Amino acid sequence: MARQRYNIVLVGSGNVAHHLGRALKLAGHRMVQVMGRNNPGGERLAFALGCPFKLLGTEIPDEADIVLLCVKDDAIGAVAQQIHCPGRVVAHTAGNVPITALADCSDRLGVFYPLQMLRQGTEVDMAKVPFCIEANTTWTEGFLLELARSISANVQVLDSGQRKLAHLAAVFACNFSNHLYATAQEILSHQGLSLDLLRPLILQTAVNIQNGDPSKLQTGPAARNDVQVIEAQLEMLRSIKPDLVPIYEQLTLQIREASQKRALNAPAQR
Amino acid sequence: MARQRYNIVLVGSGNVAHHLGRALKLAGHRMVQVMGRNNPGGERLAFALGCPFKLLGTEIPDEADIVLLCVKDDAIGAVAQQIHCPGRVVAHTAGNVPITALADCSDRLGVFYPLQMLRQGTEVDMAKVPFCIEANTTWTEGFLLELARSISANVQVLDSGQRKLAHLAAVFACNFSNHLYATAQEILSHQGLSLDLLRPLILQTAVNIQNGDPSKLQTGPAARNDVQVIEAQLEMLRSIKPDLVPIYEQLTLQIREASQKRALNAPAQR
Repeated sequence: MARQRYNIVLVGSGNVAHHLGRALKLAGHRMVQVMGRNNPGGERLAFALGCPFKLLGTEIPDEADIVLLCVKDDAIGAVAQQIHCPGRVVAHTAGNVPITALADCSDRLGVFYPLQMLRQGTEVDMAKVPFCIEANTTWTEGFLLELARSISANVQVLDSGQRKLAHLAAVFACNFSNHLYATAQEILSHQGLSLDLLRPLILQTAVNIQNGDPSKLQTGPAARNDVQVIEAQLEMLRSIKPDLVPIYEQLTLQIREASQKRALNAPAQR
Repeated sequence: MARQRYNIVLVGSGNVAHHLGRALKLAGHRMVQVMGRNNPGGERLAFALGCPFKLLGTEIPDEADIVLLCVKDDAIGAVAQQIHCPGRVVAHTAGNVPITALADCSDRLGVFYPLQMLRQGTEVDMAKVPFCIEANTTWTEGFLLELARSISANVQVLDSGQRKLAHLAAVFACNFSNHLYATAQEILSHQGLSLDLLRPLILQTAVNIQNGDPSKLQTGPAARNDVQVIEAQLEMLRSIKPDLVPIYEQLTLQIREASQKRALNAPAQR
């Protein structure tokens, strides 16, 4: 089956607009225009994508199949007020904004959310980026699924509740992990050591779970229930950074409990 | 300057013995023998390294420059009792065992600790593995530094206190992060979602800090002090997994404080 080629209007000129615009163009879709406020970034992106730049508020061309809002979460409301194109799909790309924010734009509404950090100047393998799709009609859902699958192999439908849950999980897995990297850096600095000592191990830990189950890959003193090391580490923390003690205690307790539960559920070894 | 070629006796046949044995042989050193308890793993490793296998307790050959103990932390004491070779270097490869555990083996003692997960069947770029060196004499320190630098570009001297601190930092950056991955997986499973949704973002988060400062790369609701999202996420946690509430609260508080401190210290924007 030949892949459909769509006419796309891109709103915004930031990181998401750059990455999605390029990926969609490379996948064979046609960029009708880039829209935004009056700024050189929008002109540059339009030039790079080989299409005109138009100010927000000007009419959406009839040929457009979809208007894709690649603007920040808190700008979506204001931008949506300037878009009115019944019959065409209007979708935003934000993880934390409900589909209803677009209610006045069209009768075909959706969310087209790439769950990855998209930064200009950083190459991203778009085929591996998970896309979370939501839509207000079955037809629109099918349209957005097809569009997403033309650039990524990891596409699924998530309703608003699931998307919120995914965002909460991302806070734990990514925002909190990054803070733990910063915490490790602070600990190391107490004796003049650099994070370079741990950078390879941090990367390896994230690589290991790409094809594995993190709960089965848990290592360290808490997983081994090595009380002596745990006590010694708590003692160290009390002297160098006492505000980390509660976090160490709680995470240790949770790892311990999870490890014990898994040991109980594992089939007995012969 | 031509690189010195050393004669190495390897004790153990597990993950660390496999990876170090292969890397040292590839670097041009000579494996004199593999030693261990009577087990097929030791015979296999000796065969792979092209040297004989000997039972622990048999004499260390005169030609050996170093006896490298690649056995588990809690086995080092027992193994050390079976090694006596004054004048030769005896070093262990454990992060959490003091150098004094080897006291009766020789007058030249050291630690040769690779700070990376070394698993059989998993390729490791040894040149990037951080090696932590400690020794009881300047001569031995020089010897171990040279040996480590023959296989890795990331070698430094860490005394016992620094090594303990590095291990504590690794617990935060790696063990705790892995537990947060497992936690995210559990959160996602509440609505039948897979961790595949977050695997790319988890990897990207670890890749980003390879050349960056994690405290400057912090993102998420806590870093933005987005009170509305934080409250909504706490509410969700209370209903699906209330035991995560204290961890969410504490990590959020710490990220918030760190972000505010950085904002205060940043030069004012014009």
